[in-house]
Amino acid sequence: MGDSSVSNGLGPVTRVLFCGPYWPAATNYTREYLQDYPFIQVDEVGLEQVPDVIQNYNLCVVKNRRIDSDIIAKATQMKIIMQYGVGLEGVDVNAATEHKIKVARIPGSTTGNAVSCAEMAIYLTLGVLRKQEMDTAVNRTDLGVPVGETLFGKTVLVLGFGAIGVEVAKRLRPFGVKVLATKRNWSSDTLPCDVDEMVDKKGGPEDMYDFAGEANIVITCMALNNETAGIVDHKFLSSMKKGSYLINIARGRLLDYNAVFDHLKSGHLAGLGIDVAWMEPFDPEDPILKFPNVIITPHVAGVTEYSYRTMAKSVGDTALQLHSGEPFTGIEFVN
Amino acid sequence: MGDSSVSNGLGPVTRVLFCGPYWPAATNYTREYLQDYPFIQVDEVGLEQVPDVIQNYNLCVVKNRRIDSDIIAKATQMKIIMQYGVGLEGVDVNAATEHKIKVARIPGSTTGNAVSCAEMAIYLTLGVLRKQEMDTAVNRTDLGVPVGETLFGKTVLVLGFGAIGVEVAKRLRPFGVKVLATKRNWSSDTLPCDVDEMVDKKGGPEDMYDFAGEANIVITCMALNNETAGIVDHKFLSSMKKGSYLINIARGRLLDYNAVFDHLKSGHLAGLGIDVAWMEPFDPEDPILKFPNVIITPHVAGVTEYSYRTMAKSVGDTALQLHSGEPFTGIEFVN
Repeated sequence: MGDSSVSNGLGPVTRVLFCGPYWPAATNYTREYLQDYPFIQVDEVGLEQVPDVIQNYNLCVVKNRRIDSDIIAKATQMKIIMQYGVGLEGVDVNAATEHKIKVARIPGSTTGNAVSCAEMAIYLTLGVLRKQEMDTAVNRTDLGVPVGETLFGKTVLVLGFGAIGVEVAKRLRPFGVKVLATKRNWSSDTLPCDVDEMVDKKGGPEDMYDFAGEANIVITCMALNNETAGIVDHKFLSSMKKGSYLINIARGRLLDYNAVFDHLKSGHLAGLGIDVAWMEPFDPEDPILKFPNVIITPHVAGVTEYSYRTMAKSVGDTALQLHSGEPFTGIEFVN
Repeated sequence: MGDSSVSNGLGPVTRVLFCGPYWPAATNYTREYLQDYPFIQVDEVGLEQVPDVIQNYNLCVVKNRRIDSDIIAKATQMKIIMQYGVGLEGVDVNAATEHKIKVARIPGSTTGNAVSCAEMAIYLTLGVLRKQEMDTAVNRTDLGVPVGETLFGKTVLVLGFGAIGVEVAKRLRPFGVKVLATKRNWSSDTLPCDVDEMVDKKGGPEDMYDFAGEANIVITCMALNNETAGIVDHKFLSSMKKGSYLINIARGRLLDYNAVFDHLKSGHLAGLGIDVAWMEPFDPEDPILKFPNVIITPHVAGVTEYSYRTMAKSVGDTALQLHSGEPFTGIEFVN
């Protein structure tokens, strides 16, 4: 690494910073992957300490730490800011570019991240269809209640048909559902060749309201950006059928909190399954979680042995390549 | 119905008895289906009262009431004993035959029962793979823990490849798993034609221990009978890989309680997902439920709007056919 490294007596050291205590397996698995390379140092610091120490690091994994221009300005030895996954909405990419720092994500289609998220989407979908009052029934020693709903026979709208949306649709197929999907650009070369076998009806962003009117279940699989923040709003939710279900395994702020709250309260939404929330970690006492058929999981859709070990290899290899000056593999630069 | 009916002033009445308070939708949906036929009377009585009133009824739906020869001897006007579903292990079929009472189930492949149960099997499987400590993490405002496991890449053993097993295998396919299955008779004409596309390895009952050694997940989809009661015992569980998962959506007594308890305690089993239990309703304080990665649901695998409405039609039509003397449709007699 030459001049941007710090010596620890073993020669130059490349320093990797993981921001904050959440998703602890990200740090742990990366450390394990790099355990035979003492010239790579992996640290995890609390979210608040990041601005105070970031100047010492060459590679930063942001997790859910917002990295804005003020912090980037301090990262004088930083070469790469990356995400342990795909979502980079917390990084000020323009500021990074200005400071000659590369910004990268780990594409989900090869790491198992998309597969993991898709499995979680199916889990949450089946969970809300079966009604979370199942727990109450067990505790009341009741049997054969509540009456759930099958996925069979339903129409599912997949909002956003990237790597995760594709894996969701593939798994939905044998459940006997009709799949609708929206995507900005259907000519993308990342789509699998058999997409027409997975999707009954394809549309652009402008079709989402019409499609919502046909769907019993909506699964959000979009990236979060200026165009998609709050896209599941009053207008969209009102377009959905009464008694339909909403699943979010992407980013919390795709959903307008008040709109979702109001549609749960009125019963227009029959259930909500979210792996991601508006603030994270999310207050377990938040009133939206008190509605009868709401499931929340702790942002673990992509957190599996398989995807986390694979992504640890991506981060570890990036650190090794940064150290040795070799070309980068397995990550996708956005600037 | 002639002589076996009782008059209520509207002409002869055919009387239908639902045993016990559980699975209330069975009674309610059948009543709704029959609401325009005042000559069919649908009653639900407590489990204890069944022996006292059974002599008044022509058709009986047993649910989880055991109907042994003592009770059958009292059912002097009874023509048909049936299950709201497929499982008839609680009916003494020989005694019924002796008393000239027909015994019937509703085959699951056409009613949505198999589909519903298969969806529940997938739900419970994904649930134990993701670890039920997710709830604790939410309440502790933790994020990104626990690290779950993907279904992707796993080997799944489906024990019993009847209507439910087929639907389970079909849904497992696109998750990227290897599917093993055992069945007494693979030449059965109830198997779909594309079974070889669903199953990687087929075996008989004698193969279950070898197959268990290859599997990460075992899903029991068998009928309960003298041969299968307790079939998941110490020998079988010890044949399973350390860290594997067990799912039961069929009947509780397929599993040997002590064997399952011991294998959860030792950590040999990494998780247990059961919709059915040894006694039902099951004590929510039972120590087996206190292991960290155990999910129980209140015997609702087959309880969905779709299957319960369809089965209400089967029971309702049976009552109407019994009343009019027309041939029976939609049920399967076992004697």
